[in-house]
Amino acid sequence: MDSLLRVDQKRILKLVATEEAFHSLQEAIKIVKLESEIVSVNNALGRTLGEGIVAQSDIPSINRSAVDGYAVRSNETRNASAEKPLKLKIRGELFPANTTSGFRLQKGYTAYLGCGAPVPEGADAVIRIEETKRHGEELEVCCPIEKNKNVILIGEDVKRGTTVLNEGHVLRPQDIGQLAALRIKKVKATRKPRVAIVSVGDELTELENDDPSKIINNYALIISALASESGASSEIIGIASDRVSEIVERITKALNVAEIIITIGGCSVGIKDFVPDAVNAIGKPGVIVHGIKISPGKVTGFGILKGKPIFMLPGHVASTVAGFHLFVAPLIRLYSGSNIRAPEIIATANQDVKANSGMQLFLKVKVKKSNGRFIAEPIHGGSSSVSALINANGFTILKEGMHVKKGDELLVTLFSEKELKQI
Amino acid sequence: MDSLLRVDQKRILKLVATEEAFHSLQEAIKIVKLESEIVSVNNALGRTLGEGIVAQSDIPSINRSAVDGYAVRSNETRNASAEKPLKLKIRGELFPANTTSGFRLQKGYTAYLGCGAPVPEGADAVIRIEETKRHGEELEVCCPIEKNKNVILIGEDVKRGTTVLNEGHVLRPQDIGQLAALRIKKVKATRKPRVAIVSVGDELTELENDDPSKIINNYALIISALASESGASSEIIGIASDRVSEIVERITKALNVAEIIITIGGCSVGIKDFVPDAVNAIGKPGVIVHGIKISPGKVTGFGILKGKPIFMLPGHVASTVAGFHLFVAPLIRLYSGSNIRAPEIIATANQDVKANSGMQLFLKVKVKKSNGRFIAEPIHGGSSSVSALINANGFTILKEGMHVKKGDELLVTLFSEKELKQI
Repeated sequence: MDSLLRVDQKRILKLVATEEAFHSLQEAIKIVKLESEIVSVNNALGRTLGEGIVAQSDIPSINRSAVDGYAVRSNETRNASAEKPLKLKIRGELFPANTTSGFRLQKGYTAYLGCGAPVPEGADAVIRIEETKRHGEELEVCCPIEKNKNVILIGEDVKRGTTVLNEGHVLRPQDIGQLAALRIKKVKATRKPRVAIVSVGDELTELENDDPSKIINNYALIISALASESGASSEIIGIASDRVSEIVERITKALNVAEIIITIGGCSVGIKDFVPDAVNAIGKPGVIVHGIKISPGKVTGFGILKGKPIFMLPGHVASTVAGFHLFVAPLIRLYSGSNIRAPEIIATANQDVKANSGMQLFLKVKVKKSNGRFIAEPIHGGSSSVSALINANGFTILKEGMHVKKGDELLVTLFSEKELKQI
Repeated sequence: MDSLLRVDQKRILKLVATEEAFHSLQEAIKIVKLESEIVSVNNALGRTLGEGIVAQSDIPSINRSAVDGYAVRSNETRNASAEKPLKLKIRGELFPANTTSGFRLQKGYTAYLGCGAPVPEGADAVIRIEETKRHGEELEVCCPIEKNKNVILIGEDVKRGTTVLNEGHVLRPQDIGQLAALRIKKVKATRKPRVAIVSVGDELTELENDDPSKIINNYALIISALASESGASSEIIGIASDRVSEIVERITKALNVAEIIITIGGCSVGIKDFVPDAVNAIGKPGVIVHGIKISPGKVTGFGILKGKPIFMLPGHVASTVAGFHLFVAPLIRLYSGSNIRAPEIIATANQDVKANSGMQLFLKVKVKKSNGRFIAEPIHGGSSSVSALINANGFTILKEGMHVKKGDELLVTLFSEKELKQI
C-alpha cells in the first residue's frame, strides 16, 4: 500500500485569495501577441481585428440626395412661398447609379433625384417630392430650402484618413458593413487563443467510446464549450489515467498545441491526485499556486511550463467551472488581444446569502427578470451537480464572511453573454 | 418620361404603429414548426432542442464519495470524540473507477475512498482525510459523522424520469455536459429559420465584383450578419436592378430557399421604387402593410406570398436596421421554436430626447458602463450613416411625442447580446 503514504506528503500550498492568485499568474507569464491571419470580410463576423482600419476614401464619395426629390439652388428658393411659388423647369432625372459628369444645374432649372442619386453641380439642396407640386415639366417650390438640406455630404459618414475601427475591436454586423463600404475585402484578424484540455481519471471514458463501466468525460465538454464562448478555440486532448507518466505525456502534448492548458481532476489531496506532481515533473517553475481561498474551488491551482499557464481545475464540476471563470476566461480575454470584457450585469439578490469567514464564495445565481429588472436568485446545489449549473446562468463573488441581504445589488457575471437571451 | 408618372400612382398605405403592424403580420402568416435534424451532442452548442430530454438513468448511478476520505457506518461514530476516538481497521481502497461488487464494509472497519469512489455497502457516510488520524492500518475518528455526510446519493444530480431540458431550450455548455453525462450522443435540433436577402438598386455591386462606378451592397452584409446573430441562417440572393421583372425573379428565387424574405431598398416613394409592385405582381395577398409610424423606417413594409413574410426594408441603413430589429428579429425568434428573447437591459438616459408627435422614434443608443451601471447615450447621426451604427450598440423605442429626460430609465435592446462584451 505504498500509495497511501502519499497522503501525508501531499500538500496544498498556502491558500491564496483569487485576486492575489490572478496577479501571480500575470506576473509569471508573458502574454504573447498572437499572430494575425488574413480573413475575408465576409467571414470576419465576431473576429478580433489585428489592425486598426483607416479609411482610404470618403463615404459617400460624392454629395448624394438623402430623399426622392428635386435638386435646387438654395439661394433661388429664398423668397419662395405658397402665394409666390418658385417655378423651375425640370431637366432630367438622376438615379443612384448615375454620374453627374457633364451635368450642371443652371438657374431656373431642377432635376429629379432618386434617393441616393448624385447631387449635380450647381445644386446645393434637395426638396422632397411630397413638398412640391408638379405640372408636366414644371415644378413649383413653395418654401425656402436651406443649403445642404436633404444632401448627404461627401465624407459625412466616413472621412478619408479617419480611424474607423481600432485594433482589438471584435467585428459586429455594422462593422462588417462599413469595411465593405470602404471596399476592404480582407482584414487581419488575430488568431484565437488555443486552449487544450486534459482530463485525468481512471474512471473516465469519452462519450464516443461510452464504456458502461466508466463515467463520461463530460466536464471536458463543458470546459471546451465555455472556452469557445469566451473567444478561444479549444481542443480536448483526452483522458489521462491516474499515473504521473500518463499525465505528463498528455500535458506535454497539450503544451505543443495551445497557449493555455487546462487539466480537470487529479489536483486535490487524494492518494491518486497526481497532476501537481506531473506539472512539477515536466519543468520549472511548475506549480506556482495551489489552493485558492474560495469555495467551491479551494484545490484549484496553476503552474507555468514553457511560459504557458497550466490550470489545474478540480474534478467537482462546480469547482471546475468556478476555476474556469475565475482564471481561464479572464486569461483568454487577455490573450485574445481584444477589448472584450466579462459579460457583467447588476442584479438584485432575492435572498440573504453569507460567505463563510476566511473564504470567498463563488455563488452561482439564476438571473431572472421582473419588470425588466434583473433579479439574482442564489443557486446552492451540490458541488458535483451539473443540474445546479443548468439552473444557474451566472455567478457573483462574495468576499470572505460577506453577508448579502435580500434587496442588495450584486455584480453578476453571466456564464456567457448568450445567457442574456434565455433570461 | 413615362416613369415619372409613377410618382403620383405610388402610395404608401396608411401609416401603422409598429405593434399594430407586427400584429397584422402574425395574423397573416402561419408560423410553421421547422423540422428537426439530428446533431451530435459535440456539435450541439447553441442549437435549439427540438425535443424535451428526459433522463433515462440516475446521475450518479450509485452512491459516491464527495471527498477524499474514509467510509464509515455513521451509527458507529455516534460517541466518537477527541478523548475517546473510534478506532477502525483500514480495509482496502476504492477509487472512482472501481466497483463495489462483493465489497461490504463490516463493523469496526473502514476503507479509503478517493473522491468520486463508490461508497461500499454497509457504509453510509464518509469522513474527510483531513479530519482523521492514521496510524499504519488503523484510523482514528474523533467526532460523530452524520448519515450521508460527504456522500453524493444516487440520482442526487439527476433523477431518472425527470425532464432535464425542455424543447425549445438553446443549448449552453452546462447543458451539453449533462446530455453527455446521460450518455446521450445525439439530439434533435430544430433547423434554423432561413432568411434570404434581395438587394435592389442599379447602383449596387457586390464586394467581390467591386465595380468602381457603383457602391457596395454592404447593407445586405449587415442584415445577413444580424440575421445570423438573431439565430437564422441567411443567404444573400444578390442584387436586382430597378426593374419589376428582375425584382420578381429574385424574390421568387428567395421564396424557394427561405422562410423569411428580406428586400433592401426600392420601397420608398421614388420613381424607381418597384419593390411593392414586384411583391404584388407575384401573388396574393402581396403587400399588406406599407408605412410604419416610426422614424427612421417610415417606408418599411411587408407582404405575404406563399404564406411567407416578405419584409421590404428601406435603403437608408438606419431604416434598414430599424426594420430588421422591429420586425425581422422577433419573427426569427418565433420561427426558431426556441425560448430566446431580445437581449434587453435597462439603462439610464444621459441626455434629454424627444420623439416627434405622431411618430414613434427608433432611437439608437450607445450603452456604456459607469460604476457597473448601464448608461444610454442617444446617438443621433444621419439616416444613411453606418458610422452612427458603429458608434451605437442598441436601441430603444420612444412612443409618439414621448419626452425622455436625462436620468430616466430606458428599456434598451442591444443590437446583439454580443454587444454586452464590448460595453
